[in-house]
Amino acid sequence: MKIGIIGGGAIGLLLGAYLCRDHNVTIYVRRNRQKQLINEHGIFIERNSRSFPLRALLSSELQAEDCYVVCVKQQQLGNVLHLLTRQVRQSPVLFLQNGMGHVDLLHRIGGSVYVGVVEHGALKVADNVVAHTGAGRITVAVYHGKTAGLLAIVDNWHRDDFPVERTGDWKLLLGKKLIVNAVINPLTALFDVVNGGIIDNPDIRSLGQQLCFEGCEVLGLDASQQWEHVQTVAMNTRENVSSMLKDIREQRQTENEAISGYLLKHTKKRIPYTSFVYTSIKAMEKKGLIE
Amino acid sequence: MKIGIIGGGAIGLLLGAYLCRDHNVTIYVRRNRQKQLINEHGIFIERNSRSFPLRALLSSELQAEDCYVVCVKQQQLGNVLHLLTRQVRQSPVLFLQNGMGHVDLLHRIGGSVYVGVVEHGALKVADNVVAHTGAGRITVAVYHGKTAGLLAIVDNWHRDDFPVERTGDWKLLLGKKLIVNAVINPLTALFDVVNGGIIDNPDIRSLGQQLCFEGCEVLGLDASQQWEHVQTVAMNTRENVSSMLKDIREQRQTENEAISGYLLKHTKKRIPYTSFVYTSIKAMEKKGLIE
Repeated sequence: MKIGIIGGGAIGLLLGAYLCRDHNVTIYVRRNRQKQLINEHGIFIERNSRSFPLRALLSSELQAEDCYVVCVKQQQLGNVLHLLTRQVRQSPVLFLQNGMGHVDLLHRIGGSVYVGVVEHGALKVADNVVAHTGAGRITVAVYHGKTAGLLAIVDNWHRDDFPVERTGDWKLLLGKKLIVNAVINPLTALFDVVNGGIIDNPDIRSLGQQLCFEGCEVLGLDASQQWEHVQTVAMNTRENVSSMLKDIREQRQTENEAISGYLLKHTKKRIPYTSFVYTSIKAMEKKGLIE
Repeated sequence: MKIGIIGGGAIGLLLGAYLCRDHNVTIYVRRNRQKQLINEHGIFIERNSRSFPLRALLSSELQAEDCYVVCVKQQQLGNVLHLLTRQVRQSPVLFLQNGMGHVDLLHRIGGSVYVGVVEHGALKVADNVVAHTGAGRITVAVYHGKTAGLLAIVDNWHRDDFPVERTGDWKLLLGKKLIVNAVINPLTALFDVVNGGIIDNPDIRSLGQQLCFEGCEVLGLDASQQWEHVQTVAMNTRENVSSMLKDIREQRQTENEAISGYLLKHTKKRIPYTSFVYTSIKAMEKKGLIE
């Protein structure tokens, strides 16, 4: 398959390295320096001396591919959608963003649109080096368009050391992930704890349960089932520093808008705990600037 | 006047030093070491070479006084009330605790009971040394019993460098202070900012306004008037580290129960922002123990 991966972050690099073993992969990046590095040296997965050779181009040089995988963050999605609507005609596009903020934008894309959830742990170490910190899977679903294209992706991409699975209900797939993010991300950032803090500290756990219940009410999911799931994820990733805590520590903008912001935008009911953490994370994003 | 001050913390020491200039003051403390230090050397107000001589006794040695001033923290009030109900007959008792948690206990005391709010900044430096970090005033009101006794206190205690004033409505007096505490204390602790952070950071300010509105609804106070007051206090104390932030930094128990806890206990309505910060402060109190 000719695969175009858009975005040279941790997930883009990881996908590029694993998929280029069987496919003709091009990774589209924003900066010339990253393009050159990858073209000259390939991508390295940390603790693995082998380099994975693939082609890199700038996003502005987007070419025809059999399918596209969009791995940029929610905040950069606007530019990418602009490129895609102009250039892509028939090829399916798979979106792998966190949260659900991007879902509101996907109707703009004509052909087949798929969404997916990445459960790999990955950390970008350098412009062409990624650490694969946790082996997981990618689960994908049809958002609109043809199921056949998605089946082809699953069949062609899946390998035992890089599982790709399909599920039927995109809302449940993204919703489950959103709930996990809406609980673990803001609370770990607010209390400056690793993911395990969500279950080890009884008061943080009680806040987490409230957040989970509010999120499930908005998305129409079973609250006690999802709360079990959130706790399992917190347990399985207990030593991990959540992406939001990482962003706050490094004084970067977080994915607050795509997570708690999405829930607040999609309900008319009061969800005060979600609203409290949403405003708190905004406060923490600004705190560095004010102090 | 024969005055018995119960509690050898910052406020007890400050009161002792100022009042012993005109009155026969005994300060009642918990530990023998502090009793001895004060009896031998008196109390020092930092940056003032003069020592204020007064008598110290243990709380268990409580004697007859013309009036008692209770300066212990909310958490230690149980023991003190036990002593007072056994020993005090007719002498009035003035309570100077933060918050309103103590109000629920005051009906146990027979004679005249007064409550007051201390607006002095004071920091205990050693067992007989207090730093007077901010000159302010003490405002007192009748909780139950005779007004004459309170008028005598105000007349006898008031000095230009140590103002003591009387107000008519104890609920408004303590309520106003409680609202200030219920906004500034938890938010400064949660976001690790000085008091000015409440007004400088627009998102923290918006959380503060919500907390103020919830508190005013519980206490039946005018919300916009109190919100002006909270902002003025935050402005006037902008460089100060709040007592709750101090307690959290030093991994001590905070006055959470007497502040947000009081509001939650005294309403049947949902006050979710107050509930969120109440649980958050409990989480932070435990955090040190778990990590």
